[in-house]
Amino acid sequence: MLDPLDDAHYMRKALQEAELAYEKNEVPIGAVIVVANRIIARAHNLTELLNDVTAHAEMQAITAASNFLGGKYLHECTLYVTLEPCQMCAGALYWSQIKRIVFGAVDERRGCSTMGTKLHPKTEMIGGVMEEQCGEIIKRFFIEKRNLN
Amino acid sequence: MLDPLDDAHYMRKALQEAELAYEKNEVPIGAVIVVANRIIARAHNLTELLNDVTAHAEMQAITAASNFLGGKYLHECTLYVTLEPCQMCAGALYWSQIKRIVFGAVDERRGCSTMGTKLHPKTEMIGGVMEEQCGEIIKRFFIEKRNLN
Repeated sequence: MLDPLDDAHYMRKALQEAELAYEKNEVPIGAVIVVANRIIARAHNLTELLNDVTAHAEMQAITAASNFLGGKYLHECTLYVTLEPCQMCAGALYWSQIKRIVFGAVDERRGCSTMGTKLHPKTEMIGGVMEEQCGEIIKRFFIEKRNLN
Repeated sequence: MLDPLDDAHYMRKALQEAELAYEKNEVPIGAVIVVANRIIARAHNLTELLNDVTAHAEMQAITAASNFLGGKYLHECTLYVTLEPCQMCAGALYWSQIKRIVFGAVDERRGCSTMGTKLHPKTEMIGGVMEEQCGEIIKRFFIEKRNLN
């Protein structure tokens, strides 16, 4: 039986956030931050709506989680994000000293692994959780974009 | 004769921002963003006050400049920042496709050069502008911190 609190459970919540981004015509990437089996932050990419390259899902989730916790360190938290974090987001996660990063699809061009971004020594990162669904929504978004232009 | 609009001129403005951070008991780092000889964004580090690792001077300046310009790309802009940007900030600057980054003091531990962060191919970066003054205020901050503890 599937544990309802496993990684796929929270990745589905991150995917729901990606769907919200999709509906707003944003590159559909979503994130949630979890501590002690509780979601304390939800966010989705808003770079177009806000005209702001810093408005990635992860960045907003980090800010929201810190607000919730009343502290800037996310030592006991796990971030679930549908796409592998970029340099900026991995760099922010470095400062947060987050415990775990779980991502869905790999970003072969601009993901932090390809770019060589350093994670904090306290941080564990795993990828490929619900990889197919997380990648599919992004592909669908760009195919539709292409067909409209 | 010194050109009043040279790099040192704008770095002094960034240093004024660092002084504001110092007064708030924040690690004293300041930044301004300039386009066509006009300062369109000023910011200083607020990570402690906001309890938010993403509140570096550069990140706030990028958001403010994008708001001012009404667009997320900073193609014609120069960022002046008193300390070499970290992975997060250099990663954000990558997305912004900013024209120039001018920094003051080198961050040998966590600067983007040491960390190997990739800049956008369109971006030129130079360091060492008013290096001594930019580094001195940070040293002064940490010496005072140490003496208080």
